[in-house]
Amino acid sequence: MADKWSLHADRALPAEPGQRAIAREIYEQIAPLPLVSMHGHIDVESIRDNTTFGDPAELFVIPDHYVRRMLVSQGYGNHELGVAPLDSAGGLVAEPDHRLIWRRFCENWKLFRGTPTRYWLEHELVEIFGVTVEPSAETADLLYDQLSERLARPEFHIRPLFDRFNVEILSTTDAPQSDLAAHADLAREGWGERVVPTFRPDALFYADRAGWAHGIRSLSASSGIEVTDFTSFLEALRQRRIAFAAAGARASDHGHLSANTAPLDAADAQRLFDAALRGPLDAASAAAFAANMLFETARMSLDDGLVMQLHAGARRDYSPSEHDRFGSDQGFDIPVQTEFTNALRPLLSEFGHDRRFRMVLFTIDETAYSRELAPLAGAFPSVRLGAPWWFLDSPGGMARFRELTTETAGFYNTSGFVDDTRAFASIPARHDLARRMDAGFLAKLVAEHRLPLDEAIETAIDLSYKLPLQSYARTVVE
Amino acid sequence: MADKWSLHADRALPAEPGQRAIAREIYEQIAPLPLVSMHGHIDVESIRDNTTFGDPAELFVIPDHYVRRMLVSQGYGNHELGVAPLDSAGGLVAEPDHRLIWRRFCENWKLFRGTPTRYWLEHELVEIFGVTVEPSAETADLLYDQLSERLARPEFHIRPLFDRFNVEILSTTDAPQSDLAAHADLAREGWGERVVPTFRPDALFYADRAGWAHGIRSLSASSGIEVTDFTSFLEALRQRRIAFAAAGARASDHGHLSANTAPLDAADAQRLFDAALRGPLDAASAAAFAANMLFETARMSLDDGLVMQLHAGARRDYSPSEHDRFGSDQGFDIPVQTEFTNALRPLLSEFGHDRRFRMVLFTIDETAYSRELAPLAGAFPSVRLGAPWWFLDSPGGMARFRELTTETAGFYNTSGFVDDTRAFASIPARHDLARRMDAGFLAKLVAEHRLPLDEAIETAIDLSYKLPLQSYARTVVE
Amino acid sequence: MADKWSLHADRALPAEPGQRAIAREIYEQIAPLPLVSMHGHIDVESIRDNTTFGDPAELFVIPDHYVRRMLVSQGYGNHELGVAPLDSAGGLVAEPDHRLIWRRFCENWKLFRGTPTRYWLEHELVEIFGVTVEPSAETADLLYDQLSERLARPEFHIRPLFDRFNVEILSTTDAPQSDLAAHADLAREGWGERVVPTFRPDALFYADRAGWAHGIRSLSASSGIEVTDFTSFLEALRQRRIAFAAAGARASDHGHLSANTAPLDAADAQRLFDAALRGPLDAASAAAFAANMLFETARMSLDDGLVMQLHAGARRDYSPSEHDRFGSDQGFDIPVQTEFTNALRPLLSEFGHDRRFRMVLFTIDETAYSRELAPLAGAFPSVRLGAPWWFLDSPGGMARFRELTTETAGFYNTSGFVDDTRAFASIPARHDLARRMDAGFLAKLVAEHRLPLDEAIETAIDLSYKLPLQSYARTVVE
Repeated sequence: MADKWSLHADRALPAEPGQRAIAREIYEQIAPLPLVSMHGHIDVESIRDNTTFGDPAELFVIPDHYVRRMLVSQGYGNHELGVAPLDSAGGLVAEPDHRLIWRRFCENWKLFRGTPTRYWLEHELVEIFGVTVEPSAETADLLYDQLSERLARPEFHIRPLFDRFNVEILSTTDAPQSDLAAHADLAREGWGERVVPTFRPDALFYADRAGWAHGIRSLSASSGIEVTDFTSFLEALRQRRIAFAAAGARASDHGHLSANTAPLDAADAQRLFDAALRGPLDAASAAAFAANMLFETARMSLDDGLVMQLHAGARRDYSPSEHDRFGSDQGFDIPVQTEFTNALRPLLSEFGHDRRFRMVLFTIDETAYSRELAPLAGAFPSVRLGAPWWFLDSPGGMARFRELTTETAGFYNTSGFVDDTRAFASIPARHDLARRMDAGFLAKLVAEHRLPLDEAIETAIDLSYKLPLQSYARTVVE
Repeated sequence: MADKWSLHADRALPAEPGQRAIAREIYEQIAPLPLVSMHGHIDVESIRDNTTFGDPAELFVIPDHYVRRMLVSQGYGNHELGVAPLDSAGGLVAEPDHRLIWRRFCENWKLFRGTPTRYWLEHELVEIFGVTVEPSAETADLLYDQLSERLARPEFHIRPLFDRFNVEILSTTDAPQSDLAAHADLAREGWGERVVPTFRPDALFYADRAGWAHGIRSLSASSGIEVTDFTSFLEALRQRRIAFAAAGARASDHGHLSANTAPLDAADAQRLFDAALRGPLDAASAAAFAANMLFETARMSLDDGLVMQLHAGARRDYSPSEHDRFGSDQGFDIPVQTEFTNALRPLLSEFGHDRRFRMVLFTIDETAYSRELAPLAGAFPSVRLGAPWWFLDSPGGMARFRELTTETAGFYNTSGFVDDTRAFASIPARHDLARRMDAGFLAKLVAEHRLPLDEAIETAIDLSYKLPLQSYARTVVE
Repeated sequence: MADKWSLHADRALPAEPGQRAIAREIYEQIAPLPLVSMHGHIDVESIRDNTTFGDPAELFVIPDHYVRRMLVSQGYGNHELGVAPLDSAGGLVAEPDHRLIWRRFCENWKLFRGTPTRYWLEHELVEIFGVTVEPSAETADLLYDQLSERLARPEFHIRPLFDRFNVEILSTTDAPQSDLAAHADLAREGWGERVVPTFRPDALFYADRAGWAHGIRSLSASSGIEVTDFTSFLEALRQRRIAFAAAGARASDHGHLSANTAPLDAADAQRLFDAALRGPLDAASAAAFAANMLFETARMSLDDGLVMQLHAGARRDYSPSEHDRFGSDQGFDIPVQTEFTNALRPLLSEFGHDRRFRMVLFTIDETAYSRELAPLAGAFPSVRLGAPWWFLDSPGGMARFRELTTETAGFYNTSGFVDDTRAFASIPARHDLARRMDAGFLAKLVAEHRLPLDEAIETAIDLSYKLPLQSYARTVVE
């Protein structure tokens, strides 16, 4: 690696020269399109406050569970990578030396071979930060110094990057109890159409968690509706959804273990609600409560037009010891087999043909693509099939998604690209990779004489730009 | 698209030039072979009566649930596409203007990008009907007029097309109660070996349907055996199977939600039969009854040599509102996860090594290919693995089928191509696409020096022509 | 096939010329590396005694359930292929004419098109035995004579082949009751580091088998610990594990229907143990007992450092009639859907972060790769994802393994290649094929500019040689 480190213009395009030439022609048409980021986990306050990203470890390692997970799988502790242990962690301390954390990452660069993390990091390091050497034990300190210098510059604060990245619109994810003050501040600055909230009520829908009753109380406070029973619970949610919609929200988001949507009758819903107020529900009751809340959410959508996103199938907090030491979202969520056809039938039977309803379905069990999700999205007008999510937001994952869904659902029943990231600086890399993979998929159709080039280009533009906007447009409420 | 619309000679062959050249060499050997269509849903009366296909909407849109499903997924109602609503549909009417239906289809041509429907329709329009412009809002009327003119000509009636398509044999699908009169008429005209019936008793095996008892009465009438109990039920079925075999039938066909084949003891079977005569069974009892009927069907095969086809895994009539408005088979059947290994064990333990028995297994859950179906077909002499079915009868679906099954089952434990279509004019397109995909798969083996070309060509001929005939040859009953 | 039969130097490398050139460059670096065979079923006595392989049928057909299964699927009986029927087989006799068995195989050579068996056999016939004509009805006798002549030569005994194949280390599989005498004999000859045992206690963990109580008695005898209850059972197992470790064992191996690892409390474990001593347990009790034994095995690993292999998901002895006639391992084991995430949680919650523990996970349900196994191996330091196993140890199976696991688990959380074969002469072919497939996968990454060539070569060397050694190194017990 004596030469200056650089990225090949044709990276992630098909290797075969004929398809690559076509893919490049398609890619060139979509590469400059604005970024539409309709679902993700960027902190809205950081945008309002135009914060910096801190030091290299604070940008690339400490907050990124993809990166840490891989290092943990080879023997590091999350605290050795800068994660602050909880009180329950028995005296572990977060590594205070961020340069050392960065070194640990650089020394283990080879672990990321063949992963999307490597693709994203390369893109960020080279394209955004202008780094010229690859991470390694030898280059770690040099890189740390170079990156630290750049990160301190004003043009690497979040708002200038927002412009540089050409982000047209970005959705944050917000608790129902949020007062949406940061969004209001942004709106006053003219950023109200550029940064919008998403209504994410998971914590209120999982009634087996210790904090649930506390969440209900804060919902009462934020909604101004005293939540005392299931009816007032729904009323408070409706109030908050309307507030979110007024603040520009396009969608709600729901991360559930199961896709079950079976409704409860009113008495059962009330009974479970009462029980949950007294203490956490058992697993079966909590699952029934959550399923009913998905059904009720769909019903609310008819009134306020919020698009309903469902992310199903992750068993959260799989490792008890990691959870005890570091809390949630630390890389120890593991997918489970996920059934959609039977699980969604109650909801789709009631709302699946209703023009006021739209649902976007995400899975991390890719066996559901050709078997369940493409047939559902290819039949129900209310259903869109979400882009490859989480573990599947990867070159192979995206290739298989198109391969396994297009023949049944076509392109136009899919959501267009959704990045779903917590890492702001990775947004351009993720969109760029998705555009390259779609260009490659379409190029294969062209090369096999199954689609003319002009149609392929139109499709690529739709997938990259128009479809995400359309999929997340609030439905017209009659 | 200024040029005349035409199809590329190499369409759907591999894009890489080396593999394409080999694939073309293989394809040229199999393209002219006769079509063997051992399972499908062509109406036998239409063949006997040599009917026309009506107008373009009547040929391409109204009867095709693949086409309508895609349009419905983007907001059309099935009645807007010409489907006659049922009385229960509350006053909806089928669109009477077929030109308007055709326009709706043409305007939405882009929805079919990347789907097998597009491949089939292109083949039909260009190769069969000589159309020279692609469907679009602008060309809809021109196409409607051109196609209407052609469809009225005698050479576009079904029997001349039968010859033009080079169909050697075609199996229809028929209820056990059928008197097979149309088949007898065809036999008198010398078409008895060319059009044969298939025994499809599903309606008699699902005892949770309202019409079941009525079906039993009509079975009594057609068989001449008064069906009063489970024993006489089996006897009447045996009688009808023999009548079917005498009329040239090669096979029975069974579309079940589950692949379960657990037998019941005589008392339980009788008890469920009696209960069903009194009224529809509950779901669990109906499932047990259906499983037992699969087991009994296998036993009957030993006596009459009919090949037993099992199509498992579709949840029929998934959308209650669509079913209430338009009835069954309107594009709202959705696959479910399907288990085969444990489900088939009772049947295969009893009959799986019997030379008088042959079973062809079809799935729409492709996860079963490498895990269950290839190992079963690659071990049991009685089992053949059916061609990719329904949603999987597509370029990618066929590629994955060979990829996922060949290494364990080889080529010679698969059925050869089965089109399973309701759309007569699509039959050549479907066989042509299957031949191209198999040529492509074999070309990859040749290009990777895993198979010599002469063996690849012999294999392609077997898959296209010889294997379907062999797989559906009645077994020799000793 | 007029020319002399030979194998192409680039076989099984990618067909596309650009990727092939890169793949060849990678492959050339790894082709000469020693073979590390850390799990398989070679008979240790045959190595100690430096046996011959008998005649061609005895080498290539009779002991190979891959070969026989394919012939059985087309109508042969296992006895017609030389398998000795059991007493329960009702007077069937094994075909005594081995030349006839060989002819049956050669006449059906076409059945193996596209299968890994063909690849392995071609490699063995051409590369090891110097055969110059392809098997066929016409060449069968010639081949039989040629091969018989060669097999009789001293250089085709097992030990010279060991050297010729460049096998650095080979693990056998041994019952806990084994006295390991053959391993001791080999150690005395200086082969102690070259041939090591593996601890395989399955027969003692399945308490629903008729022979279980007998196994317990022989465990008492071999361990010198009188096994009277669950506690002494564990004690005896610990004693044998220590004896295995002393004899060089690196690992234990566990073939279970389910991956369930739920522990039992002491009273329940004792109760089931007592019941099993009185007679075979019912299926549910046996499954609970087996799950608990996996948990106990992990706990034992902390003390002796043996790596724990889990091979889950095969329904053994699927065909009762084949089992009655020929016994186990005759090609009638069929995979079932296999759940890992929930099943492994008890074990991984307890031991998954423990540096003294290492687990290697194998599946024949490849749907678990991207959904469950890559996320688990990509998070837990104790977990390595095993190489494609059994039906999946094939060109396509290996390609899909890398495709479906690398993006989440990387390369370095996989085990490296494991051949798991009973057929000694196939070992070089299997390793060679794996090296070619990994070279092809890495070449695609290089061709798509996702990995530089030098990193690809380093990775290939690790996968072929270093990782199997590391994955199966006993953990350091503190």
